[in-house]
Amino acid sequence: MPLTDDMQLVSVDDHLIERPGVWQERLPAKYKDRGPRITEATVEAHDQYGWGQTFAPGTQVWMLEDAVHAQLGLNAVAGKERTELGTDPVRFDEMIPGCYDPAERVRDMDIDGVQSAILFPSFPKFAGTMFNTVEDKELARLCSTTWNDFIKEEWVDPYPDRFIPMGILPFWNIEETVAEVQRLAGLGFRAITFPENPVPLGLPSFHSDHWDPFFSAVEDADMVLCLHFGTSGKPPITAPDAPMAVMVSLMGTNSMYATIDLLFSPVFHRHPKLRVSIAEGGIGWIPYILERADSTWERHRFYQNINQTVRPSELFHKHMWGCFITDEHGTKHRDEIGIDRLLWECDYPHSDSNWPNSRKITAEAFVDVPDDEVRRIVETNARDLFRFPRS
Amino acid sequence: MPLTDDMQLVSVDDHLIERPGVWQERLPAKYKDRGPRITEATVEAHDQYGWGQTFAPGTQVWMLEDAVHAQLGLNAVAGKERTELGTDPVRFDEMIPGCYDPAERVRDMDIDGVQSAILFPSFPKFAGTMFNTVEDKELARLCSTTWNDFIKEEWVDPYPDRFIPMGILPFWNIEETVAEVQRLAGLGFRAITFPENPVPLGLPSFHSDHWDPFFSAVEDADMVLCLHFGTSGKPPITAPDAPMAVMVSLMGTNSMYATIDLLFSPVFHRHPKLRVSIAEGGIGWIPYILERADSTWERHRFYQNINQTVRPSELFHKHMWGCFITDEHGTKHRDEIGIDRLLWECDYPHSDSNWPNSRKITAEAFVDVPDDEVRRIVETNARDLFRFPRS
Repeated sequence: MPLTDDMQLVSVDDHLIERPGVWQERLPAKYKDRGPRITEATVEAHDQYGWGQTFAPGTQVWMLEDAVHAQLGLNAVAGKERTELGTDPVRFDEMIPGCYDPAERVRDMDIDGVQSAILFPSFPKFAGTMFNTVEDKELARLCSTTWNDFIKEEWVDPYPDRFIPMGILPFWNIEETVAEVQRLAGLGFRAITFPENPVPLGLPSFHSDHWDPFFSAVEDADMVLCLHFGTSGKPPITAPDAPMAVMVSLMGTNSMYATIDLLFSPVFHRHPKLRVSIAEGGIGWIPYILERADSTWERHRFYQNINQTVRPSELFHKHMWGCFITDEHGTKHRDEIGIDRLLWECDYPHSDSNWPNSRKITAEAFVDVPDDEVRRIVETNARDLFRFPRS
Repeated sequence: MPLTDDMQLVSVDDHLIERPGVWQERLPAKYKDRGPRITEATVEAHDQYGWGQTFAPGTQVWMLEDAVHAQLGLNAVAGKERTELGTDPVRFDEMIPGCYDPAERVRDMDIDGVQSAILFPSFPKFAGTMFNTVEDKELARLCSTTWNDFIKEEWVDPYPDRFIPMGILPFWNIEETVAEVQRLAGLGFRAITFPENPVPLGLPSFHSDHWDPFFSAVEDADMVLCLHFGTSGKPPITAPDAPMAVMVSLMGTNSMYATIDLLFSPVFHRHPKLRVSIAEGGIGWIPYILERADSTWERHRFYQNINQTVRPSELFHKHMWGCFITDEHGTKHRDEIGIDRLLWECDYPHSDSNWPNSRKITAEAFVDVPDDEVRRIVETNARDLFRFPRS
């Protein structure tokens, strides 16, 4: 058996959908009418990811300040047949409750054979970048910290051995960002979800010194940065009339951008303990991109303001982790990436997830992989990285 | 020996640099003062590729209408040591003559052990997109057709067994484009260099029906479309302050975009004889991206306006070719791409080229590959695809 019964699946990339009352119940009274709230849209709504989808009035939508944001159906499709998939936003009463109810989620994880999971936000977007658009900056900060309080109190505290706590940040303000990292560290959070590239969000790049206090705080707290693909807010869209399949197929290129951006930046040289997980990017491209990065470094470093002594692939093997659901090419050639660099994902309740068959499909995908390597990929690499031992 | 003496290297991606007089000598008299001309810049010049480089007055530059375009030094570095590389534009008298002189080029190919080559343009950019910026559309068309006359008369006709004729098109006008394809076919041209994505150039996408008459003309002429990375004019720039190494490392993602864009478009379904070469994109990423495309098609095709019966990978294996200089990961796992899909490149005189050691380095790169496979990759695949038999 490639996936033996004693191996516990630890997913480093799942998603929760926030129940309607999260911010209404938790924000100070004066912010409730401006903060995130669920309503029936009276006007046409645009999808929150900027994928160019619009929806007719009558949709169940989030409002934040005066903006209307539709939820995409693709983000809550666990349990649906492929032929039922679509991009229409769904109502809460159309989702399976595991999307937004932690007790139900734990039951769904049990059905799927998944022991523990890291949860990315939905309405705030995968790195909390929704709140970067909020005009009232005090409301923006509170929206962000409220999500962290919510996930800790409603998901992690009741199931401390099932959910690895990961937080979002008010990253548009560096002082508030550092303060929140320190607060989260005190609360036992293990990870931060952060934009794969801050530039499209109107912020300084990883090549600047702007983020140094933040990276130092993350290092000091022994936390992991999780960069989920798409969190730059710049999806790989080739043409306005390209079918969505083009973007879905190319999402991994965003992870390539983030990987190369970091490897040629000063970040890992200035922050030798920093650890970065590239969420949902897949792994099959890693040998290619590291070979290309090293070859670029070999040929082009002399006239550029980049580190002259450490190869990019060396930095990758010390600082970065690749994440995948199934990836046949990457799994087959895992030795070219490094077994210790690989993390498994479930991606519940999104359309790439294999729920409720994750364990079965993962076992099949690892049929030619030795037991000790499977264990590291599906469980112990994640437990070590996120300091989340078996309970 | 992995690369035996009887194997002739056929490069599907080299570059020529146009000598200063090309357009001045060939354009009608009334266009000479507006057409492409070499001059000493009296103002600051911007690099022609939009990489954000600027150069002080005094640089040798091309002018076209009133615009000034600097040549990047990276584009004429054959024979330079890596530590001498830089991005400053070079003067013609600083280049080795093989850049712009066909007799010298043939000598340099002999030194390098390269028998024949396809040549991409330099000043017009790799797919002739420079002329899309020309305001006078009659001048634009003439600039484009002049390049084709120039390469035929000055490079191909004197050395018909050394240079595979490839042309550029006035692609901003579909009627003129079709007419030029037909003219080039009559002149014996074997290939067209075309933008990897027309959308950033302000033109309809591959998902529209706009290009159908053009694709049909290319099919009828039994020519090959060569999509060189970067020809969309949208290089993979992550941040304004990112070192150029980031962009160089990520250039292959542009080829991924082009590949996926075509595979999910109607193009190959409407044009069953169309053949596309993805120039300079590398090959190590192909197994990953085809797996991802197939998986996206498996999961997401039902609600999208894409072909419901043919897998993207099947289209790739019938219609597309990958090109590489050296690519260790791709070479090692060439069976996952298909030996018949692979083409070799020299890339003279660019900085990725191994000139004058192409034959030596290629032999080393193929040390573990059987002779019959090496022969197909370095020679016979290209001869078959471009209808360019041994003389």
